[in-house]
This record gives sequence, structure tokens and C-alpha cells, in this order.
Amino acid sequence: MNEYIKIDGGVTAAEGYRAAGVHAGLKHKALDFALLYSDVVANVAGVFTSNKIKGAPVKLCQELIVGGTAKAVVINSGNANACNGKQGMLDAIRMGAMTASVLGVDKSLVLVCSTGTVGVPMPMDKVEGGVGMVAEALSDDGGDMAAKAIMTTDLVNKQYAIELMIDGKRVCVGGMAKGSGMIEPNMATMLAYITTDAKVEQSALQDALLAAVAVSFNKISVDGDQSCNDTVLLFANGKAGNELLNAQHPEWAKFCNAVIEIAKQLAFMIVKDGEGATKFVTVTVKGAATISDAELATRAIANSLLVKTSWCGGDPNWGRVIDVVGYSGADVREELVDIAYDDVLMVKGGCRVPEQSLEELEKILAGDSFALTVNLNLGDDSDTVYTCDCSEEYIKINSAYMT
Amino acid sequence: MNEYIKIDGGVTAAEGYRAAGVHAGLKHKALDFALLYSDVVANVAGVFTSNKIKGAPVKLCQELIVGGTAKAVVINSGNANACNGKQGMLDAIRMGAMTASVLGVDKSLVLVCSTGTVGVPMPMDKVEGGVGMVAEALSDDGGDMAAKAIMTTDLVNKQYAIELMIDGKRVCVGGMAKGSGMIEPNMATMLAYITTDAKVEQSALQDALLAAVAVSFNKISVDGDQSCNDTVLLFANGKAGNELLNAQHPEWAKFCNAVIEIAKQLAFMIVKDGEGATKFVTVTVKGAATISDAELATRAIANSLLVKTSWCGGDPNWGRVIDVVGYSGADVREELVDIAYDDVLMVKGGCRVPEQSLEELEKILAGDSFALTVNLNLGDDSDTVYTCDCSEEYIKINSAYMT
Repeated sequence: MNEYIKIDGGVTAAEGYRAAGVHAGLKHKALDFALLYSDVVANVAGVFTSNKIKGAPVKLCQELIVGGTAKAVVINSGNANACNGKQGMLDAIRMGAMTASVLGVDKSLVLVCSTGTVGVPMPMDKVEGGVGMVAEALSDDGGDMAAKAIMTTDLVNKQYAIELMIDGKRVCVGGMAKGSGMIEPNMATMLAYITTDAKVEQSALQDALLAAVAVSFNKISVDGDQSCNDTVLLFANGKAGNELLNAQHPEWAKFCNAVIEIAKQLAFMIVKDGEGATKFVTVTVKGAATISDAELATRAIANSLLVKTSWCGGDPNWGRVIDVVGYSGADVREELVDIAYDDVLMVKGGCRVPEQSLEELEKILAGDSFALTVNLNLGDDSDTVYTCDCSEEYIKINSAYMT
Repeated sequence: MNEYIKIDGGVTAAEGYRAAGVHAGLKHKALDFALLYSDVVANVAGVFTSNKIKGAPVKLCQELIVGGTAKAVVINSGNANACNGKQGMLDAIRMGAMTASVLGVDKSLVLVCSTGTVGVPMPMDKVEGGVGMVAEALSDDGGDMAAKAIMTTDLVNKQYAIELMIDGKRVCVGGMAKGSGMIEPNMATMLAYITTDAKVEQSALQDALLAAVAVSFNKISVDGDQSCNDTVLLFANGKAGNELLNAQHPEWAKFCNAVIEIAKQLAFMIVKDGEGATKFVTVTVKGAATISDAELATRAIANSLLVKTSWCGGDPNWGRVIDVVGYSGADVREELVDIAYDDVLMVKGGCRVPEQSLEELEKILAGDSFALTVNLNLGDDSDTVYTCDCSEEYIKINSAYMT
């Protein structure tokens, strides 16, 4: 029996959330301004980019989230409000304050996020117009519009929601995300928002989010570039009427698994929508001497241009894979390395398995989703990263995207 | 006054060297088998890949070079003889022994190099034929053919030679290299051979080579992938008749500079011939708190797909540059960072210089060669890496290159 079932919707699937997405003019034509609002004050948890260069909204959110509660988050695409110096921070604060004023809530309860081009001053007149419009447009089923408004180079909007029972009450967890390029573990270049109507203790909520991010957004890679605006927020407004959830609650693990499920589904959508991506690849390194070795090797494989282009060409080029493992920094002994695509062993003990036909492997790589498993046969540690191939389309997108 | 002057030729520019390149059938049609031969026993120095996975010829060369002398190196392209297990090592040894036998020299004096596809057994019948043909073809001006025969995805062959005076005698230093993809500092994916007729003490020769590699082949990056067959060899056969060179010789620095010059010129040729490269970019990070910080930042910039694609598009996207510096691991304070393309300051104190027009910058990036300088303004350390942009052509080449 599944602990939870998939339902329609995203951030407005749970009770007591409204959202909207509008066009405020930061982008030429597309939706570019979103608002997510909880009818009651919600506990909130956040995880932010580890980049030493952080966008002004990230710094602001990091300050505000210390309070542990929020009612809204206002988000624009088209401009990251990063590397804009002191004015950037003043603009982020003003964007939050304007939203708070229109919503009639304290400004300490309004979080702010921006995504888009770095180093371009925020067009505050457009932001001001956007705040008014988006607050006006808030609705119970506005999650869809909000998910569209936070997109940058994304081709599809990304939403996922599930329901589960806690204390015999129906609880919803839903989310939306954006991200397509600048995607690298710790963290991916993305924004993600998860809402639940469960009642959750704030510090426990932060633990649940950290655990979910560790196995989802921190395990995906598109191009190895890490953005300065990555933000994941988790809201819990308690509307479901369950007993307060924390590690002592008997159904705590069930709730955490639900958050993990949402985070993983959103993360996978980001990889599948990776700029120019044509294949979804699950890279596992096992038999590593240490966890750190396993992580070095998975990350090096997932970020190797030569490996990613070989996937794009449908070529089971294991030579490039073993080469990357060799320079990854992980402890490796050539004569022990096994490499498999899906369940087909291609390399055993550092050498090509001669009786394994290339054709069968090429059939696997012709699919739009497959697994690469490297066994170092040195120990018991393993790691998995989710990534995609790199096609000419990626270069096209990123050489055309102008400052 | 220049210490040295450029002359024509490559590995056979210096006295007492012969070389050849032939087609042995390892590649479909192109030249694929080369031999470099010194008429007298030469002192030899070598630097090899730091990849933990090493091709069999690399392991063999590392053993042989301990002797400090050599008469020849036999080189094939089309097959790297890497990850072929014990048979790979037996084949490498046999390739050297066959060459030694045909040349009538001791097999301890014949080095072996291979470059090409990883994990495919060496076609030893073709190697045997190649050895006979290439020994037959040796000639005083065979450097050109040898330089062609070691190419893989290279579009042009790479040779450079200079002459200088030591002890009043004319000394030549010349070299050839191959490499175009899988190019990353420490070391680039490449083979390089430098010959000189100077008389040089073996241990001093190794020092000169290490110093030259540190500022040339270890400072270039095309795609951030590091091969398992990288090898640089430096031969000195003493034919010029100078006094024995070592650190005590008054003209030692002059000789070392000549080796550096050859290594740098060959390294630059590799970057310019980078797969799909359209621009040569000199990336400098200065004002770093430590050398290690400067190196982390230059390498992260040179390997960032987002930065490399922005160069390809001719876009002075400084946002991507500062973003990369932020995640590079280097100590950085946003409000201190300056960024310039050539001598045009684009970012001052972490913010766009508003009066600097984009047009002037776009003019610089439209050229086929420019410099990017990031000043962290935190200290006195700096580092420079030479790299290229990443175009759709790179993806085309590497998704088509089949196992």
C-alpha cells in the first residue's frame, strides 16, 4: 500500500494557499511575476545556495527566515537582482515591503525571490505594477499560473502534489519549481516552493526540508554551474488539523517521505527539462572506499562534457567513463572497475566484456532514460546523481541568451 | 634583443634527430604511426598524466624513463591502448621491443606512446606492419609527417622550433604536439615531444621540463576532461657541442626559457585547435588571497560551460563569471570584485560600471582572442589559464566520435 497518492496541482493543492502569476513587464511577453500566499501564518523552512556570491533576495530571505514564520513569498523571473550592490538589497527589501503593504501583512512575513539575468538593476516601476496585479489575481487554483511565472529558460512548468493521511486527517503536500540550466549539486540553479497544510513544528520542518533537499535538489546536475539565487522554501500552515508534527510524532517519517517525494519529483522534472537535454541518466557509483569518493566520482561523471556528449550521441563510451573516474579524485584501482548501462555489464575488472555486444548497449542508450552504474569494488559506499546529456541545443540556448 | 629566434620545423629541427609518420591501418585512412629517433643516445625527461587510470604505454614509459636515456619513441594514434588489462601492457612492451629490434637498439631505449580510443585491444598485426614501415621512412625532415601521424581529432598539426646560442654554439629546440579535446590542466589530453641538440644533465633536463609544463600544458583547458594517456617527453642528445647544461651553467636560464617557449607555443596551438573552438581566451585571476584560490577561480571559469558558451555567443556575460567565482571555492567578497575584458573594466566593486557601454565590450568578444581578468582585491596572488569557448561544433564532434 502506498503511503500517499498523487493528486493534481502544485502549491495551491494544500488547504489555505492561494497563488497567482502575471506579466509585469520584466520579460518581453511571458508571465514573470508570482505570488504565493497562505491564509494563515505558516511555519516556514528554507535552504539556500552555497555560492559565496548570493543574490540580494537570497540574503534577505536568509535574514527573514530566522523568524520561522511567513505568510507569503513574492517571486519574479527575468532579473535575478544579483550583483547589484547596495541598491539591489534596497530593491529586494522594497519589493517585499510593497507586497506586504498590498496584502496588509507585516513585512517580516513576506519572503522575496528573484531569478533571471545577473547584474542588471531591478526595474522597480515594473515590480511595483507587478505587486498590485499579482495580489489582485490571487486564487485557490492559481498554482498553475505561479508555476508558469517563475520559469526562465524552462520549457515546461514543474508542479507535483500528493495527499496522505496523518492522524486520520487528509494532508496535502504540493510544490512547484523552476530550473533548467546552471544546474549542479549543492544546489541546483533553481527555485522550488513546497506547501503543506500539515501542522509542523518549525525546527522539525527545517529538518524535513534539509533531508529532502539532500536526496533531491542536491543530487541533480545539468551543466555543473551553480547559481547565486537557488532557494527552496517549505511552508506548513496547519490547516489540515493534525496533531503537531515533529520527530516524536508516530507518523513523522511518513510526512518526511512525502516531502522527499515532492522534492524528488520536482528535481527530476528539472533534469528532464535540462537545457537541450534529450536523455535522463541516473549515475550510481558503488563499492567506493568512502562516501566522499563515491560523491567525487558521481559528480565528475555527471559533469564530464565528454561523457554527456557521448550519451547525446547514443554511444556507450565506457572509456570516457573510466577516464573520468580516474581523474575524479576518488580512490580507484583500474583492474577492479565494473561498468554497466542498466543491467548490462560492459566492463569487468577494468576491461571490456568481450562477449557483450555493442548493439544491446546502444539500444539502451537510444532510450530517453537509462542508468549508468560504476562499481569500484573497493568498499561499501555509494552515491547516486541524476543528470542529463549535453546536446548542441544546450550550446545554442546558452550562447544566444544575452546579457 | 631576443634570446632565441623562431625557425622552421619541429622535432627534427635540432641536429641528430630523424622522424617519420606513416599509415599503418589503425585509422581508416590518415597517418597513424610515428617514430622519433636520435642518432645518439639522448638524455630524456618525461611528465605524465596525473589520472589514476593510465594507459599501458604511460605505465611502460614511466618505468623506462627511470633510466634517464633513450634513442627513440614510437607513437600510434587511433588506439590509446588504455584499459586493456594485462594484454594491454604486453602489447605496449611488444610494440617497443619490435621497434627496438628493427632499429637495432636496446629495448630499454625505446619509449612507447598511444593515443586514441580507450578500451579497444591493440591490433598488433597492424602495429607490426607500422613499425617496419615507419623505421624505413625515417628522415632528417620527417618531423612534419610525424606531427601529422600523432593527430586524433586535431584539425592542424602542431610544431614549433627555435634556435639560440649556448657557449657560442647554435642550439635548437623543437617540438610537436597533439591534442584538441579532453584538455584540462594537470595535464592536458595530449602528447608532446620536444627535442634539443643541447647537452643537458639528465636531472636538470627533468627540472627544465617540469618548469615548462607547469606554465604551459598545465595551464590550458578545453573541456575540463583529463585523459589517461597524457605524456610530454624532452630529449637532449648533445649534438650541439655545448658544455654540459645544468643549474650551475651561466646560460641555464636561457635554455629553460627556450623549453618554456616551445611548450607554451605548442600548448597555445592545442587550445586554438580545441574541438569546435572559435576564440582563444586568456583567463587571469589576480588579487587572490592565496595561489590556491587564484587557481580554483581560473580553473572554474575556464571550465564553466555557461561562461564558455557566452564567449561563443560573443556575450560579455559578467554575471556568469562572478557566479562561477562564487562557487569556485576561492575566497571572494562580492563588493570587491572587478572584472575586465582586455583593458575595459566592466565590473567595479561587484557592480556593473554603468558608464561602460556594452558595445565596446561586444567588440572585444567578437574578436578571436581576448583576455578576461578578474581582480578579487583580497591579496597579491594570481594565476592565468589559457582556454577557448565552447561551440555547438564541440558537441557535434564528441557525440559523433563513436566507441
